[in-house]
Amino acid sequence: MSIITLTTDFGLKDHFVGALKGKILSAYNQAAIIDISHHIDLFNIPQASYIIGAAYESFPEGTVHLIGVDAEYSKQNRHIAMQLNGHFFICADNGILSLLSQKIVPQKIVEINIHDRLPENASDMDVFVTVACHLAKGGSLNVIGRETNEIKPIQELQPTVADDKNSIRGCVVYIDHFGNCVTNITQKQVREAARGRDFEINFSTKIIKGVKKGYSDFTVNERFSLKNYEGEKLAIFNEAGYLEIAIYRSNPSTVGTASSLFGLKYRDVVSVVFK
Amino acid sequence: MSIITLTTDFGLKDHFVGALKGKILSAYNQAAIIDISHHIDLFNIPQASYIIGAAYESFPEGTVHLIGVDAEYSKQNRHIAMQLNGHFFICADNGILSLLSQKIVPQKIVEINIHDRLPENASDMDVFVTVACHLAKGGSLNVIGRETNEIKPIQELQPTVADDKNSIRGCVVYIDHFGNCVTNITQKQVREAARGRDFEINFSTKIIKGVKKGYSDFTVNERFSLKNYEGEKLAIFNEAGYLEIAIYRSNPSTVGTASSLFGLKYRDVVSVVFK
Amino acid sequence: MSIITLTTDFGLKDHFVGALKGKILSAYNQAAIIDISHHIDLFNIPQASYIIGAAYESFPEGTVHLIGVDAEYSKQNRHIAMQLNGHFFICADNGILSLLSQKIVPQKIVEINIHDRLPENASDMDVFVTVACHLAKGGSLNVIGRETNEIKPIQELQPTVADDKNSIRGCVVYIDHFGNCVTNITQKQVREAARGRDFEINFSTKIIKGVKKGYSDFTVNERFSLKNYEGEKLAIFNEAGYLEIAIYRSNPSTVGTASSLFGLKYRDVVSVVFK
Repeated sequence: MSIITLTTDFGLKDHFVGALKGKILSAYNQAAIIDISHHIDLFNIPQASYIIGAAYESFPEGTVHLIGVDAEYSKQNRHIAMQLNGHFFICADNGILSLLSQKIVPQKIVEINIHDRLPENASDMDVFVTVACHLAKGGSLNVIGRETNEIKPIQELQPTVADDKNSIRGCVVYIDHFGNCVTNITQKQVREAARGRDFEINFSTKIIKGVKKGYSDFTVNERFSLKNYEGEKLAIFNEAGYLEIAIYRSNPSTVGTASSLFGLKYRDVVSVVFK
Repeated sequence: MSIITLTTDFGLKDHFVGALKGKILSAYNQAAIIDISHHIDLFNIPQASYIIGAAYESFPEGTVHLIGVDAEYSKQNRHIAMQLNGHFFICADNGILSLLSQKIVPQKIVEINIHDRLPENASDMDVFVTVACHLAKGGSLNVIGRETNEIKPIQELQPTVADDKNSIRGCVVYIDHFGNCVTNITQKQVREAARGRDFEINFSTKIIKGVKKGYSDFTVNERFSLKNYEGEKLAIFNEAGYLEIAIYRSNPSTVGTASSLFGLKYRDVVSVVFK
Repeated sequence: MSIITLTTDFGLKDHFVGALKGKILSAYNQAAIIDISHHIDLFNIPQASYIIGAAYESFPEGTVHLIGVDAEYSKQNRHIAMQLNGHFFICADNGILSLLSQKIVPQKIVEINIHDRLPENASDMDVFVTVACHLAKGGSLNVIGRETNEIKPIQELQPTVADDKNSIRGCVVYIDHFGNCVTNITQKQVREAARGRDFEINFSTKIIKGVKKGYSDFTVNERFSLKNYEGEKLAIFNEAGYLEIAIYRSNPSTVGTASSLFGLKYRDVVSVVFK
């Protein structure tokens, strides 16, 4: 069994995702198709990039990740396939894969060149399905594309370490279903810059001292139960390894969320300051 | 492996879709169940009809398509199963399948008559699941129903060609996730009526000259990149073969959509005028 | 093939559900993973409890039901696994499973104790995935936990039978996608208290006489077709066995729903009065 994951901005009301799965099963009926998300904001490259980067390592090596966001082929938006960390990614060369390739050197990148082997009215998804099934069956990248090293960089802010090494300045890159605000600052960056020092996290007029080990990592004793901490702000490194500003048991319709309570929005500044 | 697809208005919050899948797997644990949509507007026959018609051909022949929209059994709303174009459809006789059968002559239609063979408290979905698993296992239509030729016509507007053959008048039948407006005018109808003539598409006070081959089929040169065309209106024949009014890189929260920018709604008139 | 179902409050925009499935397939690539719901209101114990209770029996015996709602481990929120009615449930001990165990005596309950056998940074879902795959492969509960009888009761209202046995007083526990209002009064409770008597259902200022056998169980003759009954209120025992207040062909954007037309909300009183 080979796994093909799907990450798109197609939504779930239309038939697009169902039809895509039908095409995959028509080409390769042994594929196990798993949805990562179909609710990426339309054409949102940074969001797609965060989601696929946060998800892919939960799958076994050899998994093929098909990314249908801003995938219409043009000379400015070629189709590429990339092998990285034992996984395969199929995507337009629109920046989505560049965040991954900045962290880990890809094993191989090819520009897909099978377009003229497909029927004239083949869609972009037809191309991606053909490549995905080829790779899921164990086919090689060289058969479906020509090797390349160039890949379009993402137009996205990167966290910066201050010249005096006493702080890191990043920003919010994703707000999740719980209203938690994920930043682009990684646990690795903080650990390296900290060199053992304590730190606090600053955003807007707020300060959070250090990070918790879990959302419910509060002191519980005879006087305080976890219930007393509902609505408390906290910082955490999330499972994907990013610094995240959260509210304990955040809920948009009751205690509020990090996003709603602090007005934190996409691209708002979050800093880590070392002591 | 046999595929059973699901198209319903059940939504995804309740347990209905999960329970339906549980029943299918209880009856046939080899079924591969694929969601087409569970977000059909409640009891919306034309929408269900458009979605299943646009999706089904992406699946391999032999696929069983279960349609759970307005499916409660009554003397006015019998249960039917239809074989068409190598696919099987299970649905109430409420008009959803009539759009398909107007285009392609069905191989066979049966009125399902297994209701009294099931437990007394069997639900409509229990009936559909029993039939779907029977067909997915390779069973015949005659075992689960009595052949019929009558099928309830859909109460839906059809495009009309003007007496002078110089125009086709249709309407919007579906607005997709990108805000693109799908009409009921097909590529085949336009090609046949055009007899080589150019045409323009009229709606509201707007005119679009001809159709593009893809959403990004704009002239790109040293002075104009694709970026310059974001927000431009265009017409296209979509993958399902229908004329569609779209906005290049439409986005409800940024450049707007064909629906939001032109106020195009379900049933609004769209005409093709030949030159 | 073994089935693992998922019921969470993770939503479908983030990568959480996709990543969870990736972890399951990494541990057990033969698992058939079925979504029950990922749209439970955040941390909503009674809602999760209703949904899993209404869904589980549609699956074959031996199915493993993983419930990711309010699952963060703490001393107050231990992880448990329960075998009941031939099914397995994995959940935090937060009350979700107590509604099930009130109705049917569990075959076995264990407090999961594998946490220190997993990597230090294992998440709550890593624990649940490990247990789910162990059980789906046929493993025993005793290997992953220590038997217990205590389970946290749900903080939820229960219907009460009046001292004179002439009425049952319950409340709305769930409002579904169609706006139908599900109560906590079961068909079994009504049948036992009725002892053959007729009854009416009261809520707000409304009265409904008896229950219908189906949503479209109206008198149809030459003068009245089903069309004439659209928007009529009715009561029914739903498939899960609960008394439900509904509107025939309810639709939030047209005729309205039981919830919108009668202002029925979660926890509003509904009574059954015997004659």
